[in-house]
Amino acid sequence: MTAPRLDVLAIGNAIVDVIADADDRFLESQGLTKGMMRLIDEREADRLYAAMGPGRELSGGSAGNTAAGLAAMGCKAGFIGQVADDQLGAIYQHDIESLGVDFIVPARADVGATARSLILVTPDAQRTMNTFLGAAQMLDKSDIEPAEVAAAAIVYLEGYLWDPPAPRAALEKAIAAAHAAGRKVAFTLSDTFCVDRHRDGFWQLIKAGKIDILFANEAEAAAMEEENDVERAIELLSKEVPMLVVTRSEAGATAIAGDERADVPAEPIDRLVDTTGAGDLFAAGFLAGQARSRSLKDSLRLGAIAAAEVIQHYGARPEKDLRALAGDLLA
Amino acid sequence: MTAPRLDVLAIGNAIVDVIADADDRFLESQGLTKGMMRLIDEREADRLYAAMGPGRELSGGSAGNTAAGLAAMGCKAGFIGQVADDQLGAIYQHDIESLGVDFIVPARADVGATARSLILVTPDAQRTMNTFLGAAQMLDKSDIEPAEVAAAAIVYLEGYLWDPPAPRAALEKAIAAAHAAGRKVAFTLSDTFCVDRHRDGFWQLIKAGKIDILFANEAEAAAMEEENDVERAIELLSKEVPMLVVTRSEAGATAIAGDERADVPAEPIDRLVDTTGAGDLFAAGFLAGQARSRSLKDSLRLGAIAAAEVIQHYGARPEKDLRALAGDLLA
Repeated sequence: MTAPRLDVLAIGNAIVDVIADADDRFLESQGLTKGMMRLIDEREADRLYAAMGPGRELSGGSAGNTAAGLAAMGCKAGFIGQVADDQLGAIYQHDIESLGVDFIVPARADVGATARSLILVTPDAQRTMNTFLGAAQMLDKSDIEPAEVAAAAIVYLEGYLWDPPAPRAALEKAIAAAHAAGRKVAFTLSDTFCVDRHRDGFWQLIKAGKIDILFANEAEAAAMEEENDVERAIELLSKEVPMLVVTRSEAGATAIAGDERADVPAEPIDRLVDTTGAGDLFAAGFLAGQARSRSLKDSLRLGAIAAAEVIQHYGARPEKDLRALAGDLLA
Repeated sequence: MTAPRLDVLAIGNAIVDVIADADDRFLESQGLTKGMMRLIDEREADRLYAAMGPGRELSGGSAGNTAAGLAAMGCKAGFIGQVADDQLGAIYQHDIESLGVDFIVPARADVGATARSLILVTPDAQRTMNTFLGAAQMLDKSDIEPAEVAAAAIVYLEGYLWDPPAPRAALEKAIAAAHAAGRKVAFTLSDTFCVDRHRDGFWQLIKAGKIDILFANEAEAAAMEEENDVERAIELLSKEVPMLVVTRSEAGATAIAGDERADVPAEPIDRLVDTTGAGDLFAAGFLAGQARSRSLKDSLRLGAIAAAEVIQHYGARPEKDLRALAGDLLA
């Protein structure tokens, strides 16, 4: 086994975020449930866009945000996701490449429009996401080169990939390629609605030993176990995977690997602006720690530092030098 | 003369801003002069974009920002500018219309790409702009309907329109239509390089009585008069126009109309992030005051409030409810 070229190869939906302020009344008038991610078609995307306020366009996508965060932590990261050959696709590719992330799958002209997520941020900093997948759902198993996967110490996959059939097949191929090369597979449950849609499929992945590091927030862990007692859900879930990482918002985070458990508090922040990307950046910090062979506790601390940065501004990607914020932890 | 339907009709280059952080070293390596706006072609835009960091895309354009600010002040505003029938053009139209601004000229498919400005923001919050005009320079005098111009109490024009020939003709037509209808013409000198390029043309407009309200910052006033003593330049320039408004950064602003002069300090701010749009929003606040028949001094105060809001975040358009910030001044 050769030394990996990349620390982490992230695979996910390549999405440009369109972030607008909204109040609770607007969410109600649109029949939206605060904090959720829903999938919408192009027609609904056009309708909702016309109804919402002026936007800020920033590259996003869960696994893409994690790859961006890893690069900002000084790690070598790659990203696989499908964009269209259009202006938003060019923006997506530029933004991730300008951070030093390997952008592996080229834009295509025959896949419709680049994915976009209409993200409504309420004054309480919660985000409500309305995602038109467009070109992203055309990611295909032919886009997964086993040699590319083998070149990364960890392949990181978002649960959202399970929604459309072609990306699901790409995800399965990436897992097989990673394990065939002796690499690790990290997976995020993405959101509770995603868990509700795909609980059986996610359990099959876990029970088959296909996931080495599982990321969840408290609600997702509870949803996977269909267990209202969060501590109990975490305990149960931790027995099913080699490493479980649970984010707990302002209560910090927990990681469990076999008999070892670590807990950290959340990092203090000055002002909460937009929680979009908090989980993605937590995963980036944690994986940066793992890539540098840090302890469970220090990896959690790195996750907390990265998440704290991203929730203090609009957008799901870091604006500050995360390596500098990490200080001694990554030195 | 019927009562005007719009308080202000703004005419300018319709530009999507691509805002990235940069350090002084990057500006030097690219041969850029901090704080300036330069016009670039598509090839240079592609080259610089490839070299710069990840961007935030937000609608911009000087007069467009002013129209957005006027709407956020509760005024009735219209905007004339040319976008292409592409994704950035759709973003531009959405953003300005979602604020309630009348977007008057439709997107066109035969004008290349929508204009974009690559804006590099340094840690001192100064912005350095690199603008590819694209579709914006296809704005034409046929896009100016005299009846639309006559429907606004004030037509507001940016000096940048003087750069390409077709928008210059549109500007001249708009001035003629406004004055034929007994309306006022407001004009901004835009930037010192714009003044250097077009000093003679701007003087012709002023000497011919075509400008009723002239906006400038200190450097632009000095450049117009080719006079290093700023106070002296302001005094001289004020004798040439019915109303002169000069912004002075952290020193506040001055307005002179005939024998009347008003000065206000800058509004206090918590943190300076990005000065893009400061002048545009100052103009919005000032014109909102004029539209509501406020005094020179109160109009300046409204300008200072709007400018203070926009420099505390990335992007050149207000994020907060300016009418609420204005409080009693607009009540």
